Amino acid sequence: MMSMDKLSNLSRFKSSCPFLGRTQQSTLRTLCTSTSSRFPSISQLTERATKCPVMGPALQTRSTQIVAGYASVAGNADVTSLHHSKGIFPGSGNMAGIEKCPHASAARAAARMAEDLAAAAKTKAKEEAKQKAAAAAASAKAATAGGCPFHQTAGSSASAQTPEANKAPAGFNYEKFYDVELEKKHKDKSYRYFNNINRLAARFPVAHTGNVKEEVEVWCANDYLGMGNNPVVLETMHRSLDKYGAGAGGTRNIAGNGALHLALEEELATLHRKESALVFSSCYVANDATLSTLGSKLPDCVFFSDTMNHASMIQGMRHSGAKKVLFKHNDLADLEAKLQMYPKTQAKIIAFESVYSMCGSIGPIKEICDLAEKYGALTFLDEVHAVGLYGPRGAGVAEHLDYDAHKQAGENPAPIKGSVMDRIDIITGTLAKAYGTVGGYIAGSHDFVDMIRSYSPGFIFTTSLPPATVAGAQASVAYQKAYVGDRQLKQINVREVKKRFEQIDIPVVPGPSHIVPLLVGDAALAKAASDRLLAEHNIYVQSINYPTVAVGEERLRVTVTPRHTLEQIDKLIAAVDQTFTELGINRLSDWSAVGGRAGVGMADRPAHVDPIWTDEQMGVTDGTAPRVLRTGQSAVVDARAVGVTRGLFDELLGKVAAKEDGETVVRETLASATLKMGKGVRHAHEHASEVPRAPVSLLEVTSSA
Amino acid sequence: MMSMDKLSNLSRFKSSCPFLGRTQQSTLRTLCTSTSSRFPSISQLTERATKCPVMGPALQTRSTQIVAGYASVAGNADVTSLHHSKGIFPGSGNMAGIEKCPHASAARAAARMAEDLAAAAKTKAKEEAKQKAAAAAASAKAATAGGCPFHQTAGSSASAQTPEANKAPAGFNYEKFYDVELEKKHKDKSYRYFNNINRLAARFPVAHTGNVKEEVEVWCANDYLGMGNNPVVLETMHRSLDKYGAGAGGTRNIAGNGALHLALEEELATLHRKESALVFSSCYVANDATLSTLGSKLPDCVFFSDTMNHASMIQGMRHSGAKKVLFKHNDLADLEAKLQMYPKTQAKIIAFESVYSMCGSIGPIKEICDLAEKYGALTFLDEVHAVGLYGPRGAGVAEHLDYDAHKQAGENPAPIKGSVMDRIDIITGTLAKAYGTVGGYIAGSHDFVDMIRSYSPGFIFTTSLPPATVAGAQASVAYQKAYVGDRQLKQINVREVKKRFEQIDIPVVPGPSHIVPLLVGDAALAKAASDRLLAEHNIYVQSINYPTVAVGEERLRVTVTPRHTLEQIDKLIAAVDQTFTELGINRLSDWSAVGGRAGVGMADRPAHVDPIWTDEQMGVTDGTAPRVLRTGQSAVVDARAVGVTRGLFDELLGKVAAKEDGETVVRETLASATLKMGKGVRHAHEHASEVPRAPVSLLEVTSSA
Repeated sequence: MMSMDKLSNLSRFKSSCPFLGRTQQSTLRTLCTSTSSRFPSISQLTERATKCPVMGPALQTRSTQIVAGYASVAGNADVTSLHHSKGIFPGSGNMAGIEKCPHASAARAAARMAEDLAAAAKTKAKEEAKQKAAAAAASAKAATAGGCPFHQTAGSSASAQTPEANKAPAGFNYEKFYDVELEKKHKDKSYRYFNNINRLAARFPVAHTGNVKEEVEVWCANDYLGMGNNPVVLETMHRSLDKYGAGAGGTRNIAGNGALHLALEEELATLHRKESALVFSSCYVANDATLSTLGSKLPDCVFFSDTMNHASMIQGMRHSGAKKVLFKHNDLADLEAKLQMYPKTQAKIIAFESVYSMCGSIGPIKEICDLAEKYGALTFLDEVHAVGLYGPRGAGVAEHLDYDAHKQAGENPAPIKGSVMDRIDIITGTLAKAYGTVGGYIAGSHDFVDMIRSYSPGFIFTTSLPPATVAGAQASVAYQKAYVGDRQLKQINVREVKKRFEQIDIPVVPGPSHIVPLLVGDAALAKAASDRLLAEHNIYVQSINYPTVAVGEERLRVTVTPRHTLEQIDKLIAAVDQTFTELGINRLSDWSAVGGRAGVGMADRPAHVDPIWTDEQMGVTDGTAPRVLRTGQSAVVDARAVGVTRGLFDELLGKVAAKEDGETVVRETLASATLKMGKGVRHAHEHASEVPRAPVSLLEVTSSA
Repeated sequence: MMSMDKLSNLSRFKSSCPFLGRTQQSTLRTLCTSTSSRFPSISQLTERATKCPVMGPALQTRSTQIVAGYASVAGNADVTSLHHSKGIFPGSGNMAGIEKCPHASAARAAARMAEDLAAAAKTKAKEEAKQKAAAAAASAKAATAGGCPFHQTAGSSASAQTPEANKAPAGFNYEKFYDVELEKKHKDKSYRYFNNINRLAARFPVAHTGNVKEEVEVWCANDYLGMGNNPVVLETMHRSLDKYGAGAGGTRNIAGNGALHLALEEELATLHRKESALVFSSCYVANDATLSTLGSKLPDCVFFSDTMNHASMIQGMRHSGAKKVLFKHNDLADLEAKLQMYPKTQAKIIAFESVYSMCGSIGPIKEICDLAEKYGALTFLDEVHAVGLYGPRGAGVAEHLDYDAHKQAGENPAPIKGSVMDRIDIITGTLAKAYGTVGGYIAGSHDFVDMIRSYSPGFIFTTSLPPATVAGAQASVAYQKAYVGDRQLKQINVREVKKRFEQIDIPVVPGPSHIVPLLVGDAALAKAASDRLLAEHNIYVQSINYPTVAVGEERLRVTVTPRHTLEQIDKLIAAVDQTFTELGINRLSDWSAVGGRAGVGMADRPAHVDPIWTDEQMGVTDGTAPRVLRTGQSAVVDARAVGVTRGLFDELLGKVAAKEDGETVVRETLASATLKMGKGVRHAHEHASEVPRAPVSLLEVTSSA
């Protein structure tokens, strides 16, 4: 944050600096307040300043001192690192330039800018605190405002010094209010600096930063299987884009409801073996809309909500106005004790998740169904971090719990009576994570879905997703429904990464899922570790801080995909090892010594949790598992089971072709995708040095084409 | 809706009908409850039945009787029309077949099905009313539930006959609850049947229905300018899709923030000459998230909300928990009277729209700014139906009000002090209507935007829009920012259509905007008119009923684009004329005779409202206006001003190329788009029979390539 008066100080330097002179005030403001994409702990202006022959060395001097305010330790490290790469060191001959420069005094002033900027907010905060006190005193006299710092009477406003005050001379100071709210975020270290990450489809999991020439390996995206660059998905989207255009052009009720939307919803209903499904802009919207509609319509409804539930569910329950009872995370005894307190006839909804994305735990779905039946509650299961990733067809953990039955039932859309997935009333999922596109959905009984469709403003009054998006999503769901190899390979890689971390005493929060959380236990350290991995190792793992996780449980959340190679895994493990050492972050043994935290190194909890994917399910015992990728360059060599892959798409085509007239659209779209796949398959066939048994993701096959 | 017992009746026919015999119960259920895409007033099952050699003639007999329940007049007309096209008439020789058929009796039973289905819901509703009464009596004894029909005690549940009751023998009956809620929608005629409309990019404004061979002309989509098939947008999206994949892969904070997202936000901030902008999944989410965050964080905040505000704003204010004061639509005196009641020091937000989408009125933006300043309120302006469509650069009505100043300022992003757009604190807009893609945004001061970015769960906890989507949106905004021709031609066509309707006494709700609402004044009639236009004339105009508009003000909402040809306009006018006559819908003179309604034919209101686009702004006075398209086939002949078009894209390229290093991505993307455009332009140059002055949309130029 930079106050207006600091900006006017800045503009005084404009006359002596050619850069400042030709740069607009608004641009400077943005540069000051935007984080560098390459060195996330410093501003873009500071990064630019290091390139200046005058300011660069000056800044280096500064970076050897302790910088006040927001500039973090990592910020200094970043500046040092930048200079290091340029051969500029404090006290070296390079520093001489600053004295020889004709603008030396202005340059010295400019050099103070970095610190000034950092200090500005601090000063501002102090000033505000002072003004708050003054305003409080003033408003104690003015009966209207009750001591709030934003409430100024006409008399007191005369003393306000900010330009905003001129706009509303005696009214509420909105700009000041924003500032104070932001200040809180800075103070509790929850202010977010977004990294500039551009994931390259052709080089998954590689991305470039704000500079296209700087590449990093991404280890924290939710494109869990790499479906965002799957050729079936992309080809389907290209065709739909050409045929149906960029946007839907209306709500579902007015011109925005097409065959592709209906086909996707049928695909999703079939996936979960439910009567119906409904697609939303996102699963945030799906959860919010569904829970708020249910809670506000069901008479006297009570929510029973797991304490670790996602923000979208929390908002939905809040918006409903219905009563909410929290139960301890995955604690059946606590849930039952609370359910017992309400008559069975009263409407109740147990809202919970299958995979909890920040700790990697898995909800006791079957047992919660038992309680729901016993106490007459509806079950609402968020499978956002599980769809595409669990179960023989990718329907999620509820499907995974009856793996063989669902595998056997295959394409039959009928529910499997008594199965866990059948017993769940409402399933919500996303198309934006494992399925690699965007959007969310609900699945359940026909009347339930029709009721939400008919009453939820968040569904009704919004433009529907673009045809190309829903077509891509359907292709992705269909692909993963028919092909288990990506899921298997993902879990194989997850096990590998967890094992390697364990071998070097890195504290992984134990869990049965694909999430690999590395406990750091301190906000500044977690951010520093993330920054350092990016700056020093070209590895991007976002730090997860409060309020997403509890204070003291800050972590790095690693997501492993089937497309990460052994080479990339080696690099990740070494980089994390070095970073933990350099920053002095607790190892697993350190946590054990102090009694543990967040499930790590705790005497009363198992150090290992059995993964939900068994060896049999992964294809490890019978050798049908896909081969782990060794390097990104040799994908074709790793291609296996061309026959299986071709069979998959023939099957997809056959399934769609068997449908009714009205769905010609979908048939045509998928047929084209199949042709493209066929080309990829042929390519692999010609070049593969061996003909192996199990399929790999088709992108492997086409990536070297 | 079909009850379970009707379904079991249906299954009895299965043994005698080969179609029913091989069709699953769940599919039948869906067919019964899904509307026919071609004949929206009948179910898919009925449509299918007309194709049956046995049931077809039987159904025709039925259709000459008055059908009870939900089957509308249009439903009968649809069936008749279907038969007409097949040469089947009641009482003709075709009917003889029904007696000769070996399954005649079963067929007659099946023929009753259509009526049975229609009557089923009615019967069911009666049964439910009966059950409700019984349950109420039972629960009066059982203290727990207080007379609610969904609350069953263990004793009373034994008498429940629905299968759902078995699942929760003594609990709340959720399925029944859904059913009752849906029943309400059917009863007040607000139950929505979605038409299956697939807009064809290459043939805008033509779409196919659920059957790819059936084509209709779309007259109600919100792709207001046809940007959904603009080659600059599509080419940009194709390239971004290949380069960055199908989805963003994460939230803005975790792996989902890229150069394209930042570039779009900069484009939007510049468009509105504001410091900052922020993109959301949709403008529904943007409005909801922003108003709920502001209202819940600002101490003692009071909302002042126009009664015609969109559902997204209403939800946002409700979710905030803050006090809301409604003021009469566009009524400044009412607004001021209400503002006066609160101290100036109290935080206030005036939430309103520029173009109200269902009636086409325009908010008094400047005057509301005056009041906001006088009473110390923040202004929140929804420009969803105006961005891309008003102002010299497409920034909306706020920009349009200072047309010349903004035109002159051009690419300079600095605010124009004292201009209406500058005085508005918060502007929200969509990328899904005039810009033809998907997503929404807010624009305002840096700290305001940063505060929403930092606190709004609806922004923070959702996957960001796909890179290809934001790239396409940016291309669209940039295109419309530089090119006014689409806006001009849209308004020219709107004037033409309004004039033509007036000439034949069709009641258009008067207004200054591009919205053309045709007053019908009755829910069933409005739906019947929409159905008949679709079935008889291949024209799709959705009817707008309660709760979107008031009861008695039901309408057909026509949206005219620059891409509708004179030929298509002729067809629309004739079809509406015929439909109004056939259904006996009030003409303008009829409304005048009864004192008017909804601004139509009211003695105390002007019959005409001056359009906000003046002749000068439309380029009509100096002859720079784009030429109206005559037919879809001769687009190239209508192409004008090739030089101007080329200049536009050179300018776009130059603007982007002048930016900083980090934005190479965008430059590259737009450069490619420009190449594609260049090709289109060359094509036009070679083939145009004249070289005219003003540009048309580039799609014209490439459409015959």
